[in-house]
Amino acid sequence: MHTELIIDDVRLTPVLMADPPLLNVQGVHQPYTPRLIVEVITRGGATGVGETYGDGKYLELARPLAEALPGRSVSDVNALVALADEVCGDSAPVETTVDAGGLRGVQTTDKLRLSVVSGFEVACLDALGKALGLPVHRLLGGKVRDHVEYSGYLFYRWAEHPEGGERDDWGAALDPAGVVAQARRFADTYGFRSFKLKGGVFPPDEEIAAVRALARTLPGHPLRLDPNGAWSVGTSLRVADELRDILEYLEDPTSGTDRMAEVAARAGLPLATNMCVTTVPEVREAFTRGAVQVVLCDHHYWGGLIRTRELAAICRAFGVGLSMHSNTHLGISLAAMTHVAATVPVLDYACDTHYPWQREDVITERHAFRDGRLEVSDAPGLGVELDRAALAVLHKRWLDDDGTMRERDDAAAMRKADPGWTTPAVPRW
Amino acid sequence: MHTELIIDDVRLTPVLMADPPLLNVQGVHQPYTPRLIVEVITRGGATGVGETYGDGKYLELARPLAEALPGRSVSDVNALVALADEVCGDSAPVETTVDAGGLRGVQTTDKLRLSVVSGFEVACLDALGKALGLPVHRLLGGKVRDHVEYSGYLFYRWAEHPEGGERDDWGAALDPAGVVAQARRFADTYGFRSFKLKGGVFPPDEEIAAVRALARTLPGHPLRLDPNGAWSVGTSLRVADELRDILEYLEDPTSGTDRMAEVAARAGLPLATNMCVTTVPEVREAFTRGAVQVVLCDHHYWGGLIRTRELAAICRAFGVGLSMHSNTHLGISLAAMTHVAATVPVLDYACDTHYPWQREDVITERHAFRDGRLEVSDAPGLGVELDRAALAVLHKRWLDDDGTMRERDDAAAMRKADPGWTTPAVPRW
Repeated sequence: MHTELIIDDVRLTPVLMADPPLLNVQGVHQPYTPRLIVEVITRGGATGVGETYGDGKYLELARPLAEALPGRSVSDVNALVALADEVCGDSAPVETTVDAGGLRGVQTTDKLRLSVVSGFEVACLDALGKALGLPVHRLLGGKVRDHVEYSGYLFYRWAEHPEGGERDDWGAALDPAGVVAQARRFADTYGFRSFKLKGGVFPPDEEIAAVRALARTLPGHPLRLDPNGAWSVGTSLRVADELRDILEYLEDPTSGTDRMAEVAARAGLPLATNMCVTTVPEVREAFTRGAVQVVLCDHHYWGGLIRTRELAAICRAFGVGLSMHSNTHLGISLAAMTHVAATVPVLDYACDTHYPWQREDVITERHAFRDGRLEVSDAPGLGVELDRAALAVLHKRWLDDDGTMRERDDAAAMRKADPGWTTPAVPRW
Repeated sequence: MHTELIIDDVRLTPVLMADPPLLNVQGVHQPYTPRLIVEVITRGGATGVGETYGDGKYLELARPLAEALPGRSVSDVNALVALADEVCGDSAPVETTVDAGGLRGVQTTDKLRLSVVSGFEVACLDALGKALGLPVHRLLGGKVRDHVEYSGYLFYRWAEHPEGGERDDWGAALDPAGVVAQARRFADTYGFRSFKLKGGVFPPDEEIAAVRALARTLPGHPLRLDPNGAWSVGTSLRVADELRDILEYLEDPTSGTDRMAEVAARAGLPLATNMCVTTVPEVREAFTRGAVQVVLCDHHYWGGLIRTRELAAICRAFGVGLSMHSNTHLGISLAAMTHVAATVPVLDYACDTHYPWQREDVITERHAFRDGRLEVSDAPGLGVELDRAALAVLHKRWLDDDGTMRERDDAAAMRKADPGWTTPAVPRW
């Protein structure tokens, strides 16, 4: 049995996936976003798949880790972080300073490394599950729910990218009516009950109006607003005053633990974050000071599914709620999110996902939301199968790219429409 | 595969194991201590074993849980706590108040239930590992070390129990010379490097003298002292002053988070605990106030091996050290401790174990310490096998007991020698 679990080969396939022109505080999503697909093949012939961020700095870390894996067991995922520290310790070309305006929170070499590890950890668990005939949730102690609820992720958006490219049929959404129409279509198509509006795009009063319109049109549906840290403490408190009775939580109204703590003390509604607590070293201060009431976990940042479960335990011990963050991702990561979410004892809010915005995937059967939920698969591993033809198409796009799409840069994408655009300093309002 | 993992039967076997007359603040160990052996048998024929506390209040909770398990999968350990809440919710006959003098910390119905769950969780993981051909550490993500270091657990003790019974060849240890002789024998026989003295038995100056004697005789060996919360804040600080440069940590010098925080602020050496943080609800206040610097985890209290790993993550996030507590236990629990300890990324101190004091066991091959360490087994499951003949002997002892040994009561045992003895109020000194 053990020999069968030994890793024989690891394949890394960077891809570019189509992404609609979704707006945020930094700019707009590019027509294509890089992702990295990790395949781990065992001597027994099981292949596990994982997915993570695909920008160059992640690829650079993934390569030495991929080379170091053959000969190890897919069951030994606890050793991956130390292995990554060892083999790609010095190659991380990233400063360790806070990038408060970045949508992904602080950027440290540790966090980059953990994001890379997450793709390998998920691939190992998928391979282990396939080899043993067990779903990934059972490798994590078993599911405690049969379905995981997701929220409808609403975005201000254009109808198409300024440079053209693939176009979807959602049209533009640039005012309350556009946001409400998007929510209705999400509700009708997928049955989402909770909705989150990505804010930080328009002056706060316009976004307050959009949330009020949602509340009027979809009464009783939990609502959230996330301006990605764009506001000052004063603005955050003013928005909290306006929306206290409407919002389930307010996400990252302002940047940094200091300002979040100041807002949290007086906001009168829970603050969620995916920016001020995205690594273990950020937990202590934020929790001790009461700066956040909900952590939106991204299993990529936190180093995989086992570490996501550990974060859940930390949150429970400190009375902090837990839900899941999403960045642009494919169906492999959605499967991973669903498995781990199914095993967490307390999951306080519907999880986020960009998945409905992504029309492309690298798995043979797309995930289907029903009543806003995904069923937790009991098939071996993640329960998804790689679509090699689709993977080849997305990889060829990456190979053919002249380099402009291989690094996600929402500000650069915005400059196609507004040549003078620079990433706004925060607080912007 | 799944069908093979379904639980077919659960067997509970209460036993009484011989225990030497080890002294502590509450009294003395009885000649026999109750433990509960849990066996989980799958439809595929795999049998997993677990072990937990065996007093009547634990047995009472274990029985309905054992009845509820058949039909469930041994892989679904996450669901055990909720199941225990459901099936034995109201049968727990225990108050939820703090029992600060108790050696096991606070006693709540939740904690009792978790202690019972731990025996079932370990048995399920052992069965799962045996069915899959994987060691338990691989079911927890894999070991990150090949050996786990244990400390020599020194006790003031009598040569024999007042009521007679089985007698070992260790003799009495009631002064510094006796403690040093014990440590030497431990070091010679098992190679232990770290030593802990169970204190709270004699006035602090006598215990300080014993620790000083250890430091003189065994220079360079990490030392700890644990009076089980027997001292006042003032006494604790005085002992800390005397032993600051000698002790690796001081364990539960005083009782309760308030007093521990007061001592920690001025002690100038780390405080460890197995009394003031023994449940998740106690973590937040103790960590926020800096009341403890090392948590000694007992996987029984915390509800099993997965929850022990979660506690380790909580400790890491808050810069609190982790090691392992031990109460009188058999080789099944020592195997479980070793597997989980092998998977924890940071294990700051050698773990505690009473095992060398126990001459009886219910496994076929006793664990053997070499250089103060146990090798982490790579055999399927826990890597131990039940010795049915030995189990039958210890169970018969439980059946034949008139009730006096079935509940561990160190004060009652002390009254055999000192009829006027009552559990001392703390602080005693």
